[in-house]
Amino acid sequence: MKITGSIAEIRTIVQNARKEGKRIGFVPTMGYLHKGHLSLVEISKQHADFQVMSIFVNRIQFNDKKDFEDYPRDFERDFALAQSAGVHLMFTPDERDMYQNHLTYVEVESLSKYLCGATRPGHFRGVCTVVSKLFNIVLPDVSVFGRKDIQQALIIEKMVHDLNFPIQIITAPTIREEGGLAMSSRNKHLSHDERTRALSIHRGLLKAKSLIESGNRNTTEIKAVIQKEIEAAHPQKIDYIELVSYNSLHPIEKLDEKAILAVAAFFGNTRLIDNMLIHPCEGGFTCEL
Amino acid sequence: MKITGSIAEIRTIVQNARKEGKRIGFVPTMGYLHKGHLSLVEISKQHADFQVMSIFVNRIQFNDKKDFEDYPRDFERDFALAQSAGVHLMFTPDERDMYQNHLTYVEVESLSKYLCGATRPGHFRGVCTVVSKLFNIVLPDVSVFGRKDIQQALIIEKMVHDLNFPIQIITAPTIREEGGLAMSSRNKHLSHDERTRALSIHRGLLKAKSLIESGNRNTTEIKAVIQKEIEAAHPQKIDYIELVSYNSLHPIEKLDEKAILAVAAFFGNTRLIDNMLIHPCEGGFTCEL
Repeated sequence: MKITGSIAEIRTIVQNARKEGKRIGFVPTMGYLHKGHLSLVEISKQHADFQVMSIFVNRIQFNDKKDFEDYPRDFERDFALAQSAGVHLMFTPDERDMYQNHLTYVEVESLSKYLCGATRPGHFRGVCTVVSKLFNIVLPDVSVFGRKDIQQALIIEKMVHDLNFPIQIITAPTIREEGGLAMSSRNKHLSHDERTRALSIHRGLLKAKSLIESGNRNTTEIKAVIQKEIEAAHPQKIDYIELVSYNSLHPIEKLDEKAILAVAAFFGNTRLIDNMLIHPCEGGFTCEL
Repeated sequence: MKITGSIAEIRTIVQNARKEGKRIGFVPTMGYLHKGHLSLVEISKQHADFQVMSIFVNRIQFNDKKDFEDYPRDFERDFALAQSAGVHLMFTPDERDMYQNHLTYVEVESLSKYLCGATRPGHFRGVCTVVSKLFNIVLPDVSVFGRKDIQQALIIEKMVHDLNFPIQIITAPTIREEGGLAMSSRNKHLSHDERTRALSIHRGLLKAKSLIESGNRNTTEIKAVIQKEIEAAHPQKIDYIELVSYNSLHPIEKLDEKAILAVAAFFGNTRLIDNMLIHPCEGGFTCEL
């Protein structure tokens, strides 16, 4: 695996791979890799011959300076994991190269209004901007994003459509730890006790799944069952429990279309997110965690 | 010359040209071509083997609906002119294909704050968004913009730098009609009398040039000489006369760096713009119209 922070070198190596007829796959990350990231590489391998990964903790998508500073980093460990997963090219750009006198921003309106967009102002603008930059540097054919960050994945998909990036976006299932906690680099910050209590998010989603699949379409009741489950585990704060339209990412009052049930809650100082897809099917809805 | 409105077809044709080892040149326009546009193609030919032009009157960059509707259009004439100028591929996208449920916008902050950005809110956001789309569709190696729209050219250059588009941007000199009026598709709207009076913009810039090259660095006096010249020609309105830093596009109080003297004025209902570059040189400044 070649590792470089040089934009020019990335361009040359990818160009050479393409000249050899290879399709380019790309997994952008903020590092501190876990099985979720590695599953994205596995999926990328099914669609492309040459795997590029980036590790860049993107300051402009953090609305909280301390969250940025505390974001876990371990490049040596990441490099070993990426190499064993089959990554050919690792891009570790330098912040000065990425954002020198930076003035340009990419924004997807409306889809950024609720969920994490409501409580993390500027977050998705930062994400869209860095992903646009990385896409223009790597020029991949396909790029894979995790469904744990479903709002991010849908916003990137919309951005790629609207700006005509010649890139196929694939969304990959959430990988979970034992007990159901969605894998996240931030899980590292959880104490043993917080981690145990954080399982209430997954339990809440499972209870909502039962409710929905048994025919309940009342969003207030669906959200209440999750809230009760999480509150019993004494979170520091519930950021949101929201049922939104899959297409608009705007809250819906009654479950009558493809939807997302999404949760964000703090355990200790660590903000965790999770979600569940709700698909219409004959005679009702089926939920996918 | 191949003419198509199909995004997929453009991608295929450009891809084939590239496979033949050709460098791709691109001149995006809003049509109603004049010698200024054709000079951009000439410059593109010096840097690329395969010339692409687009004609698309981009609704989202017009802050005035009537200005959009009245924008002159003559596709048949444009096609003949483009073909004779050596354009190989003409892209005429359909508005529905370009902006179906569109939510994504690209913005260059700070550089859009003054000059046309101040009096045409949203204009440069619309420009950056459509140019990003066109770049991602055409994937050119080089793209040429006219210096008549200098703020636009500098904003596009900054956007390309900030978002790492793998494209070389070239800015081309303003082409002028007899008497010095900067060529513009909008000149078509001028009556004979308005056109004569509009020459005052060029005369004003020439007087400012004399003043600056004779050593005057007082921006108030420099702007006043232009204002006097234009006002004597009874414009409908002077939108702005501004002396700005070349780097920041923010107004400067004293001429002590590379700068731009820019003018926007209405004659009749037609808004005209023009500008002059002011280069520092040994012992003072030299002006370039």
